[in-house]
Amino acid sequence: MAHRDSTKKVRVGNITIGGGGVSIQSMCNTPTTDVEKTIDQIHSLQNAGCDIVRLAIPDMDAAKAFGKIKSKVNMPLVADIHFDYRLALECVDQGADKIRINPGNIGGKDRVRQLVAACKGRQIPIRIGVNMGSIDSESEKKYGRTPKAMVESAIFHIRLLNEFDFDDIVISLKASDVAKTAAAYRLMSRTLNYPLHVGVTEAGTLYSGLIKSAMGIGALLLDGIGDTIRVSLTADPVEEVKAAKSILKSAGIASGGVELVSCPSCGRCRIDQVAIANAVEKALLTIDKPIKVAVMGCVVNGPGEAKDADIGIAGGDGCAVLFKKGEIVRKIKESEIVETLLKEIGEL
Amino acid sequence: MAHRDSTKKVRVGNITIGGGGVSIQSMCNTPTTDVEKTIDQIHSLQNAGCDIVRLAIPDMDAAKAFGKIKSKVNMPLVADIHFDYRLALECVDQGADKIRINPGNIGGKDRVRQLVAACKGRQIPIRIGVNMGSIDSESEKKYGRTPKAMVESAIFHIRLLNEFDFDDIVISLKASDVAKTAAAYRLMSRTLNYPLHVGVTEAGTLYSGLIKSAMGIGALLLDGIGDTIRVSLTADPVEEVKAAKSILKSAGIASGGVELVSCPSCGRCRIDQVAIANAVEKALLTIDKPIKVAVMGCVVNGPGEAKDADIGIAGGDGCAVLFKKGEIVRKIKESEIVETLLKEIGEL
Repeated sequence: MAHRDSTKKVRVGNITIGGGGVSIQSMCNTPTTDVEKTIDQIHSLQNAGCDIVRLAIPDMDAAKAFGKIKSKVNMPLVADIHFDYRLALECVDQGADKIRINPGNIGGKDRVRQLVAACKGRQIPIRIGVNMGSIDSESEKKYGRTPKAMVESAIFHIRLLNEFDFDDIVISLKASDVAKTAAAYRLMSRTLNYPLHVGVTEAGTLYSGLIKSAMGIGALLLDGIGDTIRVSLTADPVEEVKAAKSILKSAGIASGGVELVSCPSCGRCRIDQVAIANAVEKALLTIDKPIKVAVMGCVVNGPGEAKDADIGIAGGDGCAVLFKKGEIVRKIKESEIVETLLKEIGEL
Repeated sequence: MAHRDSTKKVRVGNITIGGGGVSIQSMCNTPTTDVEKTIDQIHSLQNAGCDIVRLAIPDMDAAKAFGKIKSKVNMPLVADIHFDYRLALECVDQGADKIRINPGNIGGKDRVRQLVAACKGRQIPIRIGVNMGSIDSESEKKYGRTPKAMVESAIFHIRLLNEFDFDDIVISLKASDVAKTAAAYRLMSRTLNYPLHVGVTEAGTLYSGLIKSAMGIGALLLDGIGDTIRVSLTADPVEEVKAAKSILKSAGIASGGVELVSCPSCGRCRIDQVAIANAVEKALLTIDKPIKVAVMGCVVNGPGEAKDADIGIAGGDGCAVLFKKGEIVRKIKESEIVETLLKEIGEL
């Protein structure tokens, strides 16, 4: 079993990737040249709980805008560059906290040397991001479009940086296929100890993308793999951060806030379990206590099944019981369940 | 690594659990005594793609209703019973295809013997469902509220059935904690080869329950563990089936229908990527072709990243390119992206 505390530590602004915790990343989908819109989105992402934000740098205008944006926000920003090393050099100058670029794609060793010199000068790391669609041709020829080829391709890029004594590296190995993504990261975690940026690429829309990301990122986190995560969703990037937080919480990595457990309700249930659970969940979003709350459909199983919960309700016939740590406290009317539960939580 | 094809095969009506594929289960949340409503919900679940439906049997009225429901539907039904073996015997008589009951909780060996005789007579299996909240007291005393205790508790129930030569057993080991759930199933899969009914219990509402279930069930399926799954959501049970189908598809287990990949869009994107992906996803729901469709934000990465897709579009500035297997076919106007893509898919 892999353990994320054994990966190399790399600094990205005020955030450490590797060696322990798991940070949350997202990426702006505003044009980087629209400085104001991009700053607004960065603030939204930061407020949602994002640790590191990435910006696309398709051209020199975007690279120049990077510095203006960086000067107005207070969090680590990553410049995402494909192929053009001059954009990378410019973004380093503009204050980027990390560069995402694949050094094997920039046109030769002299450019790699310049890139490394620039990043060393500012002590910023490079993320090598090999996707199933961007395996270098030699690795693909040797191993096909496989997890093994992705790992070999990443190693090819890593070696290019290592040649110039550069070791501040973060690796990502994303596929849109969940099983292949997990296999690639697992193989890499057994091979080298660079910190891993974990995600499923082109995961899809808010619904199916959420499922794919939770499966892939979740499976890896449960195995101790993953130092920073990005949930890719074809949606408002704030949704990516919300999902990432939920994944980290469910993996037992992030804590904080209330944890709500609720049963799916069944034929035993005589209360409006779905409506009550949703109302409680919504109200709990504003409460920041490290407690576990249970909304259970029936008195028979509820309090016992949710013994671990600090507080909860279990439905009866047009009523419910309030319980704490599995012990029934008192009976309450169905119409007063939400209100009573929230009041009791407030007093905990 | 575990492999689900090595688990024992158990028949539940016309469905086989174990030895290979993964079936989808859900549970009605209508009162079982409301025969008409329950039948309606079973039909909805069946139409959504559910393979096996479970009904709660809290009392003898519900047990009697079970037979009426069973005679009006055409799919395997499971009777979910807690503690009262007479309800189980009645449901066997009423035509249940599987009984969910924990034999250690029903009041002694003579009752277990009667239960086993009834199930053997009709050749129906028993699911033993140990949740973190229902570990038998001895196992909990020995091992605490741990995955190990859940497995030991299941073994205690299994042995009671084995004593009477009963072996048609399905096991579930659910916790509301994702990591503990995964650990329990992993331990069991290394211990015995009974087929596993996999799920995370009290996972929560449609949003957080989806994430927890995708993580827990997904991580296990990717490791070859799990013969039948139930996504528990505090929501319409049809949502459980929808989520289960999406999880199986993302795990590469179920196929069928179109797979949509779409990038999250970024600062490079000049089309309304989110709206287009959502519109395409919605339209594709009605198309049943085993193809992969890509909606990519930018021409630079799109066609290459989505080489595996049979067809796709990649956004340009107010336009897009249509591509097939990574090769650009032609340019299209932004306003015609969805329509053109769907037309081309229809012609594939």
